[in-house]
Amino acid sequence: MADDLRAPAPVRKDRPGAIMAGEIAEQPEVLRRILDTAAPAIAVTARVIADRRPRFVLLSARGTSDHAALYAKYLIEVELGLPCGLTSMSTTTTYGATPHLDDVLLITVSQSGGSPDLIASTEAARRAGAITLAVTNNPDSPLVDVSEFHIDLLAGPEKALPATKTYSAELMALYLFVTGLGGIEGTRVARRLPRLAEQVLARGDEVRELAGRYRFAERMVITSRGYGYPTAKEAALKLMETSYIPALAYSGADLLHGPLAMVDNISPVIAIVTEGRGGEALQPVLDRLRGRGADLVVVGPRVQVAAASGGFAMPTSEVPECLQPLLEILPLQRLAWEIAVARGQDPDSPRAIVKVTETS
Amino acid sequence: MADDLRAPAPVRKDRPGAIMAGEIAEQPEVLRRILDTAAPAIAVTARVIADRRPRFVLLSARGTSDHAALYAKYLIEVELGLPCGLTSMSTTTTYGATPHLDDVLLITVSQSGGSPDLIASTEAARRAGAITLAVTNNPDSPLVDVSEFHIDLLAGPEKALPATKTYSAELMALYLFVTGLGGIEGTRVARRLPRLAEQVLARGDEVRELAGRYRFAERMVITSRGYGYPTAKEAALKLMETSYIPALAYSGADLLHGPLAMVDNISPVIAIVTEGRGGEALQPVLDRLRGRGADLVVVGPRVQVAAASGGFAMPTSEVPECLQPLLEILPLQRLAWEIAVARGQDPDSPRAIVKVTETS
Repeated sequence: MADDLRAPAPVRKDRPGAIMAGEIAEQPEVLRRILDTAAPAIAVTARVIADRRPRFVLLSARGTSDHAALYAKYLIEVELGLPCGLTSMSTTTTYGATPHLDDVLLITVSQSGGSPDLIASTEAARRAGAITLAVTNNPDSPLVDVSEFHIDLLAGPEKALPATKTYSAELMALYLFVTGLGGIEGTRVARRLPRLAEQVLARGDEVRELAGRYRFAERMVITSRGYGYPTAKEAALKLMETSYIPALAYSGADLLHGPLAMVDNISPVIAIVTEGRGGEALQPVLDRLRGRGADLVVVGPRVQVAAASGGFAMPTSEVPECLQPLLEILPLQRLAWEIAVARGQDPDSPRAIVKVTETS
Repeated sequence: MADDLRAPAPVRKDRPGAIMAGEIAEQPEVLRRILDTAAPAIAVTARVIADRRPRFVLLSARGTSDHAALYAKYLIEVELGLPCGLTSMSTTTTYGATPHLDDVLLITVSQSGGSPDLIASTEAARRAGAITLAVTNNPDSPLVDVSEFHIDLLAGPEKALPATKTYSAELMALYLFVTGLGGIEGTRVARRLPRLAEQVLARGDEVRELAGRYRFAERMVITSRGYGYPTAKEAALKLMETSYIPALAYSGADLLHGPLAMVDNISPVIAIVTEGRGGEALQPVLDRLRGRGADLVVVGPRVQVAAASGGFAMPTSEVPECLQPLLEILPLQRLAWEIAVARGQDPDSPRAIVKVTETS
């Protein structure tokens, strides 16, 4: 079934997971499309917003898009030095808070652009003086209507319930926007990503072999630090959505503050080790996990994989750390897919999930 | 063993969990001490900081204190309308970002005041122009040294590894500080809390009965919305620290965005239902869970407990929603303790945890 991944999406739609597999496989093309088609408009939007000199950035999102928002938070803090927060939407939608948002840029990230609470909190923020930017895969959505600016992800319709290609599209678009906002040239180095994404996705057999060890896992811990942390959270969500495995994502620092008690040989651990300062800061956590005899699988540099119980070696040495999350999520999406299929579940249509979540 | 909880801490220290039980039982006294002794100094600090007119608030913390920080984020957004964010510490400590923090108030919350990354990020924020406030149980700690202002929690030494009394102390101190910052009279109504906390803690038998249903649970989901959400996260951490149960905390809105697939009769669900708008906003989630036949236990109003599979009825009708988290965590701390003891584990000294976590 590794072929499913590389085949165009319409092939064998009747097989469980064929839709999600097709959408995973589309990602190099989606990244290329954003770089070729969306980048100029994103650069213009970034410049116009930069002229308004936002002093504080808020990000609003839920589920997978919330992990893309967290990635953007790291980028904004590290690359731009702007203080940044993820919104607690219920403070406006449930409690009716009237915030003071002059000089604040609110970025709302949503695949569908249709969640009522995202629309309501964006409207409230705009009324309160915020510059509002919607990042969405649906330019005709109500979220775009209520936002002053918008970025179109151009990812094409996403039909599998677990989001994959819209996640990498969100990361790519947010990277281009944030570098544009800071006047940093970000497009040239990002052009390496589509080809590298193809290389990673071509190694489906390696992921399937890795999936074998989790066939009967009852829980998992996923850890990383810095730029890899959103990847840990998104990988955990994919595992939960597709295989219903309770997968707990922790930053390496938080893992040492309590949940480490859960590790030992009870919970297998997946560590996302970025090449750069985040990966270096994770090193003491990796040493501690190895010292405790944890079953540790690494997605990261070859040398880190070799020192672990197993893993997936990433071709990231020519990619700056802040762009590595766009590649590191790929084997983990595929891992979630493989485990679900091996367990006889259909990753395209997990129980209980609807695509546009009507929270209000 | 219910007596352990009400007995003074030194009694029967040789029994597993006696230290944590003693510290849980101390909480009404700790709340009283803050209201009687610390409140005036907190009010002065709040007024001095209010005069500096902060426009944004950042909160920095890890583990249990991070949940207290999240509680403060709700308070600040709802009661003060100030935009607010939880920091990603690694952006300064690992990536060396140099943020622009004029008009920003940074509140660092830490039991020990000794975590190197909290100290380093607070120092960096102060250099970058932030007003810095440390909220800690140790006035002689390095965190206090590097901060411009500090609030002493007066909770006394905390010896069990899972934090309990310092959590409720942090909530109480942050409530007094935030209401003081907004010029809101907050002390009078808070004076009801110590007595209500005593009433809740006196009902240990009810919690032990509830614990019975989780004796063999392999996973749990804990959900809430708004002011109850930090309680859900803290309860999940207590369960993980003491019983090693993978306990996943979700806001009700996020639960519908994917993880609901994990519920059904696989994962028992605990819902914290505040009396107020947060509880009302959770109602559709509760209905959905009941519709799916989930095993639902409620910590909240009696009528909500009656409509669930079980629960713990809270005496919160005379307490505003924003103060209910100080009471709702109490039966959940005790629940974690009961489950751990029933499983033959020692909640005082979970595997692998050290009290001051040396992340850097």
